[in-house]
Amino acid sequence: MSRIAYVNGRYLPHRDAAVHIDDRGYQFSDGVYEVIGIAAGRIIDEEPHWDRLDRSLRELSIRWPMSRAAFRLVVREVLRRNGVRDGIVYIQVNRCIAPRDHAFPKAGVPTVVVTAKRARPAARAAQEKGVAIIAIPDIRWKRCDIKTIALLPNVLGKQRAVEAGAFEAWMVDDDGFVSEGTSTNAWIVTKDGELVTRQTDTAILPGITRGSLSALAREQKLRFVERPFSLKEAKAATEAFLTSTTAYVTPVIQIDGDKVGDGKPGPVTRRLQEWYRAYAAGPGAAA
Amino acid sequence: MSRIAYVNGRYLPHRDAAVHIDDRGYQFSDGVYEVIGIAAGRIIDEEPHWDRLDRSLRELSIRWPMSRAAFRLVVREVLRRNGVRDGIVYIQVNRCIAPRDHAFPKAGVPTVVVTAKRARPAARAAQEKGVAIIAIPDIRWKRCDIKTIALLPNVLGKQRAVEAGAFEAWMVDDDGFVSEGTSTNAWIVTKDGELVTRQTDTAILPGITRGSLSALAREQKLRFVERPFSLKEAKAATEAFLTSTTAYVTPVIQIDGDKVGDGKPGPVTRRLQEWYRAYAAGPGAAA
Repeated sequence: MSRIAYVNGRYLPHRDAAVHIDDRGYQFSDGVYEVIGIAAGRIIDEEPHWDRLDRSLRELSIRWPMSRAAFRLVVREVLRRNGVRDGIVYIQVNRCIAPRDHAFPKAGVPTVVVTAKRARPAARAAQEKGVAIIAIPDIRWKRCDIKTIALLPNVLGKQRAVEAGAFEAWMVDDDGFVSEGTSTNAWIVTKDGELVTRQTDTAILPGITRGSLSALAREQKLRFVERPFSLKEAKAATEAFLTSTTAYVTPVIQIDGDKVGDGKPGPVTRRLQEWYRAYAAGPGAAA
Repeated sequence: MSRIAYVNGRYLPHRDAAVHIDDRGYQFSDGVYEVIGIAAGRIIDEEPHWDRLDRSLRELSIRWPMSRAAFRLVVREVLRRNGVRDGIVYIQVNRCIAPRDHAFPKAGVPTVVVTAKRARPAARAAQEKGVAIIAIPDIRWKRCDIKTIALLPNVLGKQRAVEAGAFEAWMVDDDGFVSEGTSTNAWIVTKDGELVTRQTDTAILPGITRGSLSALAREQKLRFVERPFSLKEAKAATEAFLTSTTAYVTPVIQIDGDKVGDGKPGPVTRRLQEWYRAYAAGPGAAA
């Protein structure tokens, strides 16, 4: 089955899916995106993703290119045409196509790309065995709460991780606190048994998986707190893990070459992992 | 004459000039660019632009997509096909086209777009009369010395300027120092007659016009120093101006609604403007 992409109103073979060179996403990173997980044909946390897209668009004064209802249909059609039942759907919205000039064009229609692909099995192995991460300085801009395509610093950070043989890089701010991973949110379980993740402010992306897992942790009455934690605290933690649409709950068993706890996925992480998987599978799914 | 764009080895009508949705410039702002000025058919400061492109590519570990000699030919061909004798040429190089994944793909050919357009006469009016600017916080990342297409913060800053009825926004860092404009470098002449612009470090782009004007200032034995200056110092300056490939030397006569000096382009600015114009026109050009 050859892949099909939705591009500005048309369903195109992926190889022919192109955008104009004057698309502001291409010239200015003037756009936003979402990645939504699909499990057994179910669109995970769909509405929170639309809500976040809405916020991203509003923060950048970009109009919705179509109604949310229409977007829901496009996503379903792209999933159907690509036969994706387990994987992700990718949605990108840019300001418009216009002659190159920094300020917003007076008129202009937002451009849209929607693609889907099947999950990579590699991600599941990482969830079982846990992963190593490295710490790097957070050199990003001050509005990391907006899910924009200005991802170059994240790209450079992830590349550093890969070159160090690690799965991810946790970024550390000027005050020594971990902000987040390059494409994941960061969590620890302290020696006192407290589950900690950074509060959502302008320094991190409000991850959808992060949000759903936070709700689960509260529901399950874990000792859960949203606050900054330092790299030092992370290294002294008994457990650590990361979350994202594609990583779900992935144990972090090593930071900068040092074991976290006993170097194996911990019990709190495992419990959260199971809860989240059941949540993602949806009500009524087999455990 | 309809416009022609160079896109990955082909000369295409501008309206058909497209790039693949998996181009990493489009999805990750994983690319760099240059804008070079053209005056009376002359390519201004061509080699410094290639040198800066070389540095940008090296900093991001992107290969040159073709030799510098080949690039020089492409630029000339794009200028010729578009009949541009006064204006700019725009060059964008992205890492490659690859399935979306943050880390660098193992293989992949850099993608290239080259376009040209005629100068807008508006820019000349700004050089004569001077412009108003506003000050805004610098919220950008920590590697502004690399000329990347991750320009969203610059776009947002320029938009704020436009909405305030200003030509440009000067960005002020956490220590109260002016870094640069959203697409220009910032200069002042202090009460003591000292010409000041910020030193090139990772906080600002080493502008080519900035570099050439610095050399002229030294040649002409002006009292010129490269150091940080605060917004307060800028507001108390007797003259201020900005430089860029398209703005040349443009006087700044108002900052946040307050006059700079007597609110008219000052004598040092005018002298630098004349020198720079003569320099841009090239040896032997009529004054």
